[in-house]
Amino acid sequence: MKRIERAIISVYDKTGIKEFAKTLVNEFNIEILSTGGTGALLEKNNIPYVKISEYTSSPELFEGRVKTLHPKIAGGILFRRDLEKDIKDSIENNIPPIDMVVCNLYPFKQTISRPDVTLKEAIEMIDIGGPTMIRAAAKNYHHVVVVPAPACYSQIIDELRKNDGIIPEKLRVELAIKAFSLITDYNSTITNFLLSSYHPSEMFKPVMFKTYQKVSDLRYGENWDQRAAYYRDLASNHGLFDFKQLHGKDLSFNNYLDIDSCIQILLDFGIKNHVTTIIKHTSPNGVAMDEQDQLISVKKAFSTDPLSAFGGIWGFNSMLTEEVANYIVNEEKVFLEVIMAPSYESKAIEILKQKKNLIILEFGDFLEKRSEIYSNPELRSVLGGVVVQEYDHKPVVKEWNVVSKKKINEEDKKALIFAYKVSKWAKSNSACFAQIYDTGIYTIGIGAGQQSRVHVIELAVRKAKQFGHEKALIHSYLGTDSFFPFPDGLEVAVKAGAKAIINPGGSIRDDLVIHKADELNCALVFCGKRVFRH
Amino acid sequence: MKRIERAIISVYDKTGIKEFAKTLVNEFNIEILSTGGTGALLEKNNIPYVKISEYTSSPELFEGRVKTLHPKIAGGILFRRDLEKDIKDSIENNIPPIDMVVCNLYPFKQTISRPDVTLKEAIEMIDIGGPTMIRAAAKNYHHVVVVPAPACYSQIIDELRKNDGIIPEKLRVELAIKAFSLITDYNSTITNFLLSSYHPSEMFKPVMFKTYQKVSDLRYGENWDQRAAYYRDLASNHGLFDFKQLHGKDLSFNNYLDIDSCIQILLDFGIKNHVTTIIKHTSPNGVAMDEQDQLISVKKAFSTDPLSAFGGIWGFNSMLTEEVANYIVNEEKVFLEVIMAPSYESKAIEILKQKKNLIILEFGDFLEKRSEIYSNPELRSVLGGVVVQEYDHKPVVKEWNVVSKKKINEEDKKALIFAYKVSKWAKSNSACFAQIYDTGIYTIGIGAGQQSRVHVIELAVRKAKQFGHEKALIHSYLGTDSFFPFPDGLEVAVKAGAKAIINPGGSIRDDLVIHKADELNCALVFCGKRVFRH
Repeated sequence: MKRIERAIISVYDKTGIKEFAKTLVNEFNIEILSTGGTGALLEKNNIPYVKISEYTSSPELFEGRVKTLHPKIAGGILFRRDLEKDIKDSIENNIPPIDMVVCNLYPFKQTISRPDVTLKEAIEMIDIGGPTMIRAAAKNYHHVVVVPAPACYSQIIDELRKNDGIIPEKLRVELAIKAFSLITDYNSTITNFLLSSYHPSEMFKPVMFKTYQKVSDLRYGENWDQRAAYYRDLASNHGLFDFKQLHGKDLSFNNYLDIDSCIQILLDFGIKNHVTTIIKHTSPNGVAMDEQDQLISVKKAFSTDPLSAFGGIWGFNSMLTEEVANYIVNEEKVFLEVIMAPSYESKAIEILKQKKNLIILEFGDFLEKRSEIYSNPELRSVLGGVVVQEYDHKPVVKEWNVVSKKKINEEDKKALIFAYKVSKWAKSNSACFAQIYDTGIYTIGIGAGQQSRVHVIELAVRKAKQFGHEKALIHSYLGTDSFFPFPDGLEVAVKAGAKAIINPGGSIRDDLVIHKADELNCALVFCGKRVFRH
Repeated sequence: MKRIERAIISVYDKTGIKEFAKTLVNEFNIEILSTGGTGALLEKNNIPYVKISEYTSSPELFEGRVKTLHPKIAGGILFRRDLEKDIKDSIENNIPPIDMVVCNLYPFKQTISRPDVTLKEAIEMIDIGGPTMIRAAAKNYHHVVVVPAPACYSQIIDELRKNDGIIPEKLRVELAIKAFSLITDYNSTITNFLLSSYHPSEMFKPVMFKTYQKVSDLRYGENWDQRAAYYRDLASNHGLFDFKQLHGKDLSFNNYLDIDSCIQILLDFGIKNHVTTIIKHTSPNGVAMDEQDQLISVKKAFSTDPLSAFGGIWGFNSMLTEEVANYIVNEEKVFLEVIMAPSYESKAIEILKQKKNLIILEFGDFLEKRSEIYSNPELRSVLGGVVVQEYDHKPVVKEWNVVSKKKINEEDKKALIFAYKVSKWAKSNSACFAQIYDTGIYTIGIGAGQQSRVHVIELAVRKAKQFGHEKALIHSYLGTDSFFPFPDGLEVAVKAGAKAIINPGGSIRDDLVIHKADELNCALVFCGKRVFRH
């Protein structure tokens, strides 16, 4: 491109525009064209400019709805400086080149985020002239510089200085890409807003636009030979990107999946009591809730299956204490990859940092933002598309329906709900045996990922026995994520020691299952909500 | 709105435009404004219209880059018919209302899909004037009708006839939403194209735009209380949306996940031999490959674990025969929810339809399009964003490294690769025992979803024994999806009868594992590729 001779400036966000315009004029002798509000600001600061209405001999119309939509502006931006025919057209029609477009848009996103916004106000904020100029300049990036955000000003000035009033091709390209990105996101926000305004009851609209911004490339994906990355959804105000990493190596793809499971279990338990949850391969392998002491909850959760806990993710719902940090660092068999907690006692961090590779994450008040966190749906790729669903964020108990003759007291109820929450997050089909101790509840055997109910219950029993919970199985509690298709699973559980079982119910053989529970004197709750997670 | 008096027509895709324009003029006495190519077509068909260059007294410039970008056009579309000030502006400046905008865009998507397209040609196809008019009309939908695609013409005419030249608000809104959707997708395609052109080596770009089009709402999500839907990714040419449903009830959310796993296993096996794969909860629970006979492969796959096969998804890589259909319908213990095959013998379909609820899917030559199918990455939600990765579509064996003293023949190799492919698709950690029979290979015990290697191998052994494969375990083959952290898992497998084992290798204790294999006279292959799937 040639030296920049003429720039149009028309911005809603006026951050830094005064200094930027001044430099263009004083250092590079660039002629400025400008409109209403922006022009007034330049005038106030004695920065010379030409009014667009004078430049085009056409007034600003309809309260600014039409001001830059003019052939002399569009043509000045769009014509090809390397084409004889275009040059001829531009001279014959008195359309001098406009080499730079500095423009940002009416703030549609901010406007609609106001809770009291009306449809009319929102629509008024749909910018027409701005996107036209930005797109025209971006299209013609071989000859024109588009400056679509204040964040670009300092780099532009640097490059103009370095290159004697010229912006190099590489930067023009990047600016054009940025411009089209902003325009896409702007239009996508408008479309989503109109869809929500006119189809409020339809959760899933006929078309769904997503803008994802890369947070980081990842070393690899699920396996070493898959490239991968982590993106933020621009429609979400909260997410894993809120987490602060205090120590350790970069997060891997599988770390993200595990952390996601871990924080969601914690979201289900909330901030009451001391909860420790140990995750391996996105499934919990030990969870405990202690009313008084964090360290006890840690030991209890770890005791469930110390073998599989190796290399796991440990999550907490309360400030991590120095005492627990000491335990984690010094206990011989404990080896974890990630630790995550709302906050840390200051000495706890120092102690944990002794583990060079340990990833330490702090998530502040994240557990208190449940409803905002779950406002967007969950996506999952299937070949050529996605299945989307609401997150499974409703209470795990829909109705408390004790269907057995044997009744249930408050303590039993707490333990059952605890077991059922863990079972929810263990991969389906899943089963979780839990037991009460003097100050809390903990898991004693978790089975996950089986293709039949009876298999997974057998598996959970076996694991409980393997890790020394044979006695704790006596009078234990079982949560299992879907109904019993046959009474056999219940029979296995009761024989192992279960005194009460929670599941959603809903099998065509529920009668047989209830009958078997009564026969074996086991309490049975149908809670009406299945908690599959594949 | 008032009766439509004036419409602008400027279309690239001229489908149906002649008839549409004729009706506007003849039946509703609407004045047409038009440009270059569209105008020529109207002229040829004796449809009266006003040239935009005459209407604006401004010539078409720069080979059509500038023709509608004019205050008289933009203003005529944008001004508010219910605002005194705007009406005054329009009269004083001689800007009559334009009540309808019929416009479609330069075909950017089709242009860039041509394999020989140049960057320059693509950029020339970025439409500037069209999106401006479409967005202006869509913004002002209270007063103006936007007609952004030929598919809308017949409905427009119907409504004009019903309402005496007026388009009702409801339709104007829907058209505006459609218009903004098209514009968003158009800009997103441009942005993605520029990113790919200028950052070709970066698989994951700084920003990622996705347009999803709803194919269907689903009854519910993973659980009964989660709303859900299935969307097509507009950037994908192939996907589950290619499948034809020949029979049965609507697909559920979990059906989609299972079908996705099932077709991906089949993609890994390809179209050679007769492969049957039975899926339950996205994990294979029986797979067989027969060189001669489909029915044998079915029986073998079913024999692996007939209990968990209940309610599963059955997939085939070859035309489904009448014989197999008979077996499926008449065999007492067989109950499946979905059957999927490239094609069906005509009688096979009739036989299968006897099962009222059975979902029958036909996927044609899908298995032959592997590389196109895997050209887009896989997404998975984590709170507030997504992790994205290349699909795991590379060959499961990266290098064939026999690390044991005991060697391996060609037959062993085939059986090991078979077992390893199944292990890949079983949820991690997984283990698959396979055995050879006279005309093929089949699974005899699959373990999935465990948090330690030794657990999952124990589980697979137990399942093999439970379903009568105790003898088949002798001299069997084991594939397991990641390395042995300790020799214990290998020991369990060999004691159960495994003669050869494949895994990626890569543990810090590989030496101990190899030593144990040699001690037990077991063949051991490290194939260098992990196949986790969580």
